[in-house]
Amino acid sequence: MLIEQFFDSGLGHASYLVADPDAGVAFLVDPDRQIETYLSAAARLGVLITDSFETHIHNDYVSGSRALGLLRPITVHAGDGAGFAYPHAAHPDGDEIKVGEIVVRCIATPGHTPEHVAYLVSDLRRADDPQYLFSGGALLVGQIARVDLLGPKQAAELARAAYETLRERVLILADYVAVCPTHGGGSACAAEVAGSRWTTLGFERKHNRIARLASEDFESFRSAITEGLPVAPAYYPRVRDLNSKGAPAATRTRLPFVREMGPDVVRIDPRPPHIFGAGHRPGALNVVANDSFAVRVGATVPFGAPIVILTTDPEQAERLR
Amino acid sequence: MLIEQFFDSGLGHASYLVADPDAGVAFLVDPDRQIETYLSAAARLGVLITDSFETHIHNDYVSGSRALGLLRPITVHAGDGAGFAYPHAAHPDGDEIKVGEIVVRCIATPGHTPEHVAYLVSDLRRADDPQYLFSGGALLVGQIARVDLLGPKQAAELARAAYETLRERVLILADYVAVCPTHGGGSACAAEVAGSRWTTLGFERKHNRIARLASEDFESFRSAITEGLPVAPAYYPRVRDLNSKGAPAATRTRLPFVREMGPDVVRIDPRPPHIFGAGHRPGALNVVANDSFAVRVGATVPFGAPIVILTTDPEQAERLR
Repeated sequence: MLIEQFFDSGLGHASYLVADPDAGVAFLVDPDRQIETYLSAAARLGVLITDSFETHIHNDYVSGSRALGLLRPITVHAGDGAGFAYPHAAHPDGDEIKVGEIVVRCIATPGHTPEHVAYLVSDLRRADDPQYLFSGGALLVGQIARVDLLGPKQAAELARAAYETLRERVLILADYVAVCPTHGGGSACAAEVAGSRWTTLGFERKHNRIARLASEDFESFRSAITEGLPVAPAYYPRVRDLNSKGAPAATRTRLPFVREMGPDVVRIDPRPPHIFGAGHRPGALNVVANDSFAVRVGATVPFGAPIVILTTDPEQAERLR
Repeated sequence: MLIEQFFDSGLGHASYLVADPDAGVAFLVDPDRQIETYLSAAARLGVLITDSFETHIHNDYVSGSRALGLLRPITVHAGDGAGFAYPHAAHPDGDEIKVGEIVVRCIATPGHTPEHVAYLVSDLRRADDPQYLFSGGALLVGQIARVDLLGPKQAAELARAAYETLRERVLILADYVAVCPTHGGGSACAAEVAGSRWTTLGFERKHNRIARLASEDFESFRSAITEGLPVAPAYYPRVRDLNSKGAPAATRTRLPFVREMGPDVVRIDPRPPHIFGAGHRPGALNVVANDSFAVRVGATVPFGAPIVILTTDPEQAERLR
């Protein structure tokens, strides 16, 4: 069994290709819309992607499961609370799915979102004993994913759910379970996440402050998970809707060069602040073209507003689009 | 702290880049001669490689530590028994080396070879508690590396050393330690290795048959580690010598096309056997150009013999050279 992690440092998003090369099959966990990346990794390993697992309805990026399902006969899996508007397998807690000789166990882990599930994975070529947890947002490296993204009303309920998820579903697992989360450093779905992109259950049980507080009273836990949260980008609810419906593949057609801009167009200047400060187009916003560009544009610009990125560098234009 | 694994499936060899991006530095573990790969990964992460750690004198591939050391001011580290003929830091058991906020602890783990060490790593940004073991051959996924490569005389002594290494140095570590080995599936340095390319200490303690036998009597352990060993390629002792001296970077100059071959030249025909069987050059050996090409050529052809690969495909020629 082979695991490949893909990390989008702009969004702090990790996705996975998990392959059984002997059986020639593989599945994805929380793929994003860059589906060519997964298809070429699968081709390199000589495996066919047959399944895609969603841990939750994502706020922070456009899922690639639906787009891949429109191209290839794959099965998209989710918890039974996800209610995607497109064909998928909805799993109650405890369901098991087999892909080659890999068993994927669906565990209801509400908290980050109500429909959240995690996937506990065994490689039957070694043992039935689970060794990998694709934890989504239920356990991150040094953190858990935030519970306030669906609004203040649900936040109290979700904080309680996250507390119980950790106590009853996650921290009961063996120390030697490797944890592969969906949200990593740079994600606006969590307070600051530690640098590593994967971890182990026992190490988090011991050194993750939030996980440790889950074994104490609810109030200390609740107050700790509200600390240090970044601004949630304004596009989050829209992307959650989009992922519920099922987003088609992104178009990769060439963007036009813009000569005349209407007054409603948001002008983004991606140059460093000291250069921006020395002179820029009237009305341009300065959002530096570094790793957190997408999250900061999302936090600054209203959803759906027409955007023009002011750059003379075609490579930068392609990267930032 | 970020870990990137590089896997050469032809040799079954795993190497690692371990980075502290906040400090802007990184180190390698058991790099091979494809040093451009590590340099470009480091450039992508925005870090400078300052150190390279060798777990043992490798038999199976040409190390890249010396070549990198000739290009850049890095420190090469090894156990104090390695005795490399080039400048390096020789560490007794227990030595600690700091790279950025990462602490690397050198643990003497003789068995696969006498000078073998493993590196136990902590990310001080999280805790001083070690979370990663770069185990070399001291613990593999479902196996340990073989002890017979230095000849039958040393094999008995090394079997005893491997037994004690597991009992006293490796299996005493916490369940949650992640294990990143040097030898993986396809390596002739071990009997068959399970499919995953990394694992966790507790999972191996429980499900690795050889590790489990290490807690029983020495005789059962010794007889289990002699099972299922592949043929050791004839080039192994030569490569061990080369790595002791320190191999310079490989030349990537274009190979000449050969029209006239002398009688001593070994002709390798990389086509599938059914095509080879239908007709081939007189005297050509059929070694199919799949993942284990290098190991099988090494097991078939005497070291230093001139080789010509018979192919009309320039991409294949480049890949197999």
